[in-house]
Amino acid sequence: MRATENMDAEPRNPLPDQAAAVRSGGARRPRVLVATGPTHEPIDDVRYIGNRSSGLMGTAIAAAFQARGYPVTVVRGPGVPAVPECGDRQFVTAADLLSVLRAEWPSHEVLVMAAAVADYRPAARVPGKMRREGGPITLALEPTEDILAGLTANRRADQYVVGFALEHPEELASSAIAKLQRKRANAIVANPLATMNSPDVDATVFFADGRSATPGRTMPKPEFAAWLVKLLETQHLQ
Amino acid sequence: MRATENMDAEPRNPLPDQAAAVRSGGARRPRVLVATGPTHEPIDDVRYIGNRSSGLMGTAIAAAFQARGYPVTVVRGPGVPAVPECGDRQFVTAADLLSVLRAEWPSHEVLVMAAAVADYRPAARVPGKMRREGGPITLALEPTEDILAGLTANRRADQYVVGFALEHPEELASSAIAKLQRKRANAIVANPLATMNSPDVDATVFFADGRSATPGRTMPKPEFAAWLVKLLETQHLQ
Repeated sequence: MRATENMDAEPRNPLPDQAAAVRSGGARRPRVLVATGPTHEPIDDVRYIGNRSSGLMGTAIAAAFQARGYPVTVVRGPGVPAVPECGDRQFVTAADLLSVLRAEWPSHEVLVMAAAVADYRPAARVPGKMRREGGPITLALEPTEDILAGLTANRRADQYVVGFALEHPEELASSAIAKLQRKRANAIVANPLATMNSPDVDATVFFADGRSATPGRTMPKPEFAAWLVKLLETQHLQ
Repeated sequence: MRATENMDAEPRNPLPDQAAAVRSGGARRPRVLVATGPTHEPIDDVRYIGNRSSGLMGTAIAAAFQARGYPVTVVRGPGVPAVPECGDRQFVTAADLLSVLRAEWPSHEVLVMAAAVADYRPAARVPGKMRREGGPITLALEPTEDILAGLTANRRADQYVVGFALEHPEELASSAIAKLQRKRANAIVANPLATMNSPDVDATVFFADGRSATPGRTMPKPEFAAWLVKLLETQHLQ
């Protein structure tokens, strides 16, 4: 692991710790909520705007937390398979995802927001099937809800939020840090665009206190997921 | 099977028969090309316009032909699994699909066009990742190639084309027959919209000579596929 600052320093944005566990009635591990996969925003009954997220990163992270004994709930998008031995919820649209996360978030302490949310959806859904006509047409789009910002704005002091950013390589750090601050997350995992729909990842984790860490090489997503869970544990989880 | 006309009548639009097999050098079965699954038309490097086709109908038909001894090539879209013991080609966009079908069609005698092609694609692909901005935006769309019409227009006399139509139930027959004629197909399988992404189908087959046939009930797609292959054999294949 390569760290840009001393990773042994006292974390200023700790994950829920034993104190939280004691408050909640026992020395149990924090409950982890992982959102993963694409959103599909309907244009009509058959067509939609989607994105190429495979859900691999989020499901690998869920499996890595689960393997280390954390109770995990997975909230997964279209085409993403369930993760064994985890709680299971599904979504299609960004609005669905926000609704599920709002319902689940109060009973969890850690949110890993790895879902790839469409930033835009069709402003109006055409009933039935849009007919093919002769020439060009235009599709009016409106912004979807800002899901991560909505959840972090109301989070409890014992809740910890890890976001994801998919960025152009040349502005990876600056865009990710801007997103981390804008979304008020505790940490953000920044990936180059090539990560999407790939089995491998070359990511850097930025924390709200200014530190960052990276494995320093491209690795399979399950290997990165195990590294990330250990990083978060080393820093924050007791 | 319920038929609206006498299904034993001499077919006016025969599938490739023994004469074609003799011409091609032996008493072999016609080679079948099956296109199935959705197209994805990129908006930028991560987003696309897709449709909810699962590819189940086409892969079931490919498997049914293969099980009855036909050589089959499957041309499949994103997210559709390969069909065992069949030739395998893949596509993402409508343009890809047209390119693959143009290359494969000359070496096949039967085309089953079960792919769900986007009628529209973004007029321009945004390089990288489109940024989220504050307000509504519009997306300019242009029509995609008319794939089926392009292939039927140049087909040999020994080639037979089966299309698919996904229609509103109340105009199923009229829309399907209009599409059959417009696309110059030999037969068209008309499904109500509810078929898409469903394990079941309630379809009617319309032939270019005016006849039609239907199993008369909703059935699992593999069962319908076996029925369809036998229907085509009874009518056309020796």
